[in-house]
Amino acid sequence: MSTSMRKKVETFIDDLQDDIVTALEKLDPNAPRFKRDTWIRPSGGRGLSCVFACTPEAGQTTSTLQTKLEKAGVNVSVVHGILPPAAIKEMRADHSSLPYDEKTSLPFFAAGISLVIHPRSPFDPTVHANYRYFEITEQAGEGEETGKIVAWWFGGGSDLTPSYLDEEDARHFHATLKDACQNDELYNAFKKWCDEYFFIPHRQETRGIGGLFLDDLSNEKHARIPEEVKRPREPGEIFEFISRLGNAFIPSYIPLLQKKRDIPTDHHRRWQLLRRGRYVEFNLVCDRGTKFGLKTPSARIESILMSLPETARWEYMSDLGTEEGSEEERLIKVLKNPRSWI
Amino acid sequence: MSTSMRKKVETFIDDLQDDIVTALEKLDPNAPRFKRDTWIRPSGGRGLSCVFACTPEAGQTTSTLQTKLEKAGVNVSVVHGILPPAAIKEMRADHSSLPYDEKTSLPFFAAGISLVIHPRSPFDPTVHANYRYFEITEQAGEGEETGKIVAWWFGGGSDLTPSYLDEEDARHFHATLKDACQNDELYNAFKKWCDEYFFIPHRQETRGIGGLFLDDLSNEKHARIPEEVKRPREPGEIFEFISRLGNAFIPSYIPLLQKKRDIPTDHHRRWQLLRRGRYVEFNLVCDRGTKFGLKTPSARIESILMSLPETARWEYMSDLGTEEGSEEERLIKVLKNPRSWI
Repeated sequence: MSTSMRKKVETFIDDLQDDIVTALEKLDPNAPRFKRDTWIRPSGGRGLSCVFACTPEAGQTTSTLQTKLEKAGVNVSVVHGILPPAAIKEMRADHSSLPYDEKTSLPFFAAGISLVIHPRSPFDPTVHANYRYFEITEQAGEGEETGKIVAWWFGGGSDLTPSYLDEEDARHFHATLKDACQNDELYNAFKKWCDEYFFIPHRQETRGIGGLFLDDLSNEKHARIPEEVKRPREPGEIFEFISRLGNAFIPSYIPLLQKKRDIPTDHHRRWQLLRRGRYVEFNLVCDRGTKFGLKTPSARIESILMSLPETARWEYMSDLGTEEGSEEERLIKVLKNPRSWI
Repeated sequence: MSTSMRKKVETFIDDLQDDIVTALEKLDPNAPRFKRDTWIRPSGGRGLSCVFACTPEAGQTTSTLQTKLEKAGVNVSVVHGILPPAAIKEMRADHSSLPYDEKTSLPFFAAGISLVIHPRSPFDPTVHANYRYFEITEQAGEGEETGKIVAWWFGGGSDLTPSYLDEEDARHFHATLKDACQNDELYNAFKKWCDEYFFIPHRQETRGIGGLFLDDLSNEKHARIPEEVKRPREPGEIFEFISRLGNAFIPSYIPLLQKKRDIPTDHHRRWQLLRRGRYVEFNLVCDRGTKFGLKTPSARIESILMSLPETARWEYMSDLGTEEGSEEERLIKVLKNPRSWI
């Protein structure tokens, strides 16, 4: 199935990227269009980064810019290469089918879509989503395009990070993802995993109000899903499941950007920038993907750090977020005690 | 010597903190004063954080604020506690005098001053300095205040991070530190160590134009200093050496803030904020002290992250810094190839 699943995933993420960028551009027809940036990885693979940014020109300040988005990136990457024995050893924890000996490297293939959207208004939430397919094969024999698959899995998820809590937004976002799961037990497992993954230990709070987080989804035993839970196990079924989640992105998020919001003040903007500081802290200090990427010698740093907000702010012992009964404190409470939204 | 060195260091860092804060306040008499924040560590110790911040009030924007500094912190901390065996094991690499067995924890004492100053003008450089004393003892016997010292060392340094390169600033800063060393071989060794330490691998550039970085300075063999180099080895001598470096901070940096600078444009400010983004990246991704602090369960997060700038900026594939012959490119060249400044 190797080659056919690769193609299916590739087509799916390319189409989804196009749909999402189109939806975002339609939302704000007077804004500059996304910049499309195709790249080739010399050691194997290609990608397309679609990026929105609206840098103030001389004489403008950020507040004179009226675009819906402040910074956004929707990335597709399809890469292949060779995994060193140490990397394979680490992956064996979740994929016991992987053969391992100290001297054997194996070919891998990875394809995924990854996006982060930071809107300009402090009342519009930031969103992140990522869906990916990973495959490890034996070395290709003579005349073969790829070797026999020895392990494969899907991963991904989507999560929402508001600066101000709109409970209706939270319910809509979670309900849309839950519908796409078509499986309450899986929604519950991946919702919980999301709250755990996006926890910032040094702040003792989550990055946002969660969503779904999943990894290592294949036909093998799964550390997070009890054996008795009915779930997709065959490649085709899992691809369908991941496709539904990916396709749920637009209906889960775009309506939030279409809502009529209050006009923010400098106070709201300041709080938003402080929250973006926390976003930077999570991504640079805690996020597995970012940390792994920054350590990878041939990684494309600009793609990895595309997730960072345009601006972020840090205040020593900030008084924002501490005033009892304030909107800022209301958010913090939810970040300290993740809630069920449905 | 245990108790007397502790007292000497404590007095030294308290006085130096007071001198530095006073010098910064004198420089800008119309600005708000530093906030003084005393804290007690429940598990043992105390500190004083002196912090400058000037948050825009409603209706103000950052650009209407005219203070010399944007954000600054000058911290003193004097703490003691118990080091678990794992921490002792790690320290043995540089301190072979440390006894080690799997079950033995040992008391430690740590006192230091640490500061970061982010000026408002893109033409004034950011500076960081840190001087500290560390001591590990046996458990105190009956009637003893502290146990016998089993290892002790000094560490510290100071480094400059401009957004725009002023070579005269760089020469003045380095020359002042070199004079304070009174030992060219040590200056050279610690200047080199500084360039190596403040390197950001994922950007392939240094954080700034360097200064001094030193650690593990004691009467033991030193990994960075050849045995034949004449250097202070006795506690009193090393304390004198560290004191001279600490006292060199004011003459090395304050004159840079007294220089008449050009009036910055939005372009210069934007570049400054991008450089501050790199500062955040170094501190959160690379800095040993910050990473260690964030992982320490009882650490004071606000003190650790005081070093972050007030605001930082990230642009995808920014065009700033790439234009040949520009002032921005001139800085980048120096960050990619650390230079000798004297």
